Amino acid sequence: MAPGTPFNLQQTHAHLRASAVGDRITFHRTDPLDFLSSATDAVYDVAVLAHCIWYFAKPSIVVDTLKALSVRAKRICIAEYALVASSPSAFPHVLAALAHASLECRKTEGKNNICTALTPKRIKEMATEAGLVLVEEGVLNAPAKMLDGQWEVSSVLGKVFEEELSVVKDEGERSVVEALRYATRASKEALAQTGVKVTTMDVWHGVFVTTTQPR
Amino acid sequence: MAPGTPFNLQQTHAHLRASAVGDRITFHRTDPLDFLSSATDAVYDVAVLAHCIWYFAKPSIVVDTLKALSVRAKRICIAEYALVASSPSAFPHVLAALAHASLECRKTEGKNNICTALTPKRIKEMATEAGLVLVEEGVLNAPAKMLDGQWEVSSVLGKVFEEELSVVKDEGERSVVEALRYATRASKEALAQTGVKVTTMDVWHGVFVTTTQPR
Repeated sequence: MAPGTPFNLQQTHAHLRASAVGDRITFHRTDPLDFLSSATDAVYDVAVLAHCIWYFAKPSIVVDTLKALSVRAKRICIAEYALVASSPSAFPHVLAALAHASLECRKTEGKNNICTALTPKRIKEMATEAGLVLVEEGVLNAPAKMLDGQWEVSSVLGKVFEEELSVVKDEGERSVVEALRYATRASKEALAQTGVKVTTMDVWHGVFVTTTQPR
Repeated sequence: MAPGTPFNLQQTHAHLRASAVGDRITFHRTDPLDFLSSATDAVYDVAVLAHCIWYFAKPSIVVDTLKALSVRAKRICIAEYALVASSPSAFPHVLAALAHASLECRKTEGKNNICTALTPKRIKEMATEAGLVLVEEGVLNAPAKMLDGQWEVSSVLGKVFEEELSVVKDEGERSVVEALRYATRASKEALAQTGVKVTTMDVWHGVFVTTTQPR
């Protein structure tokens, strides 16, 4: 979905600060790699990457980030969409995520959405490359209150996505992005005819430990 | 699917020649545009493009072909996959078709599979551009005996597809093709867990007439 919708960063921070653990949170608005390579010697019990992997600009930056974390955190917990819809009502979300990734990967700048749609398989390969060991993983059904499926689909079917199609110069490549967008709309409309709303796809989660002791 | 599977062109021609109308069929193994621009003055009652649109190398060649047909055929009938799965069992087929198109569109030569995955919407726009008028259209469920869904999924999950991934040089773009392949596999496995086999997606069909009389 577009940045700042349905809640912007400021609203999200305010919400978290008002929570029971709000006074124990410090926000750092900086590039993760810059932050992790800064001079601090802090070692963390746990690093959590919750639904953020897909927003890294390139797969290689994910590997670099996991490498940087491997010497700073004892455990690394990752949650990301599984690209699986255990209910047909989440098919449109799978297609919308792939549509977004297919458009964003062509942008050379101004990336503001799903950039990579990395699969659980690839994330685990990257973690291995970063020297991490998987100790636990699973797939969860998204809770009904998690509306990301609807937001993602609306975003793909919206005006901004349509306008941005022009960044894909090759007619063959553009037709694939258009086909993903069309399939997203068609699957949403097929559901609507049976009175079913779009839901959110399954979530994969993995827990990793470092093979070397954090410094 | 790969060319020549499950039946090659020779086998297919032999099958058609052995049918009741076999002696009324002439096969021309040539480029459609070359054939249509040849010196013959033949005018056809009907031109049928049955599940071939997706195999044209580029969208613009489809437009050129429709333009060439518009002065040679009175009616043009097109059938192509609708990119819609009215049954969840056809969802892997939708993903597999998009996976194939996302890979083939990056090839500069040796294209041998779905190249464009043009949507019914785009095909209709192209027909309009070619001076054709839509007089009838619809969407059909694929018959149970039509095994294209299973073939397409098998092809995407096969070795050849995996090897050809290397044609996509950019790591971000390659991750999208990998994600489409992963989602194809995951949706097939999710079905298999409930004892359901992959079926074939819905088919769109349209009948067009020429706005000008064929010459």
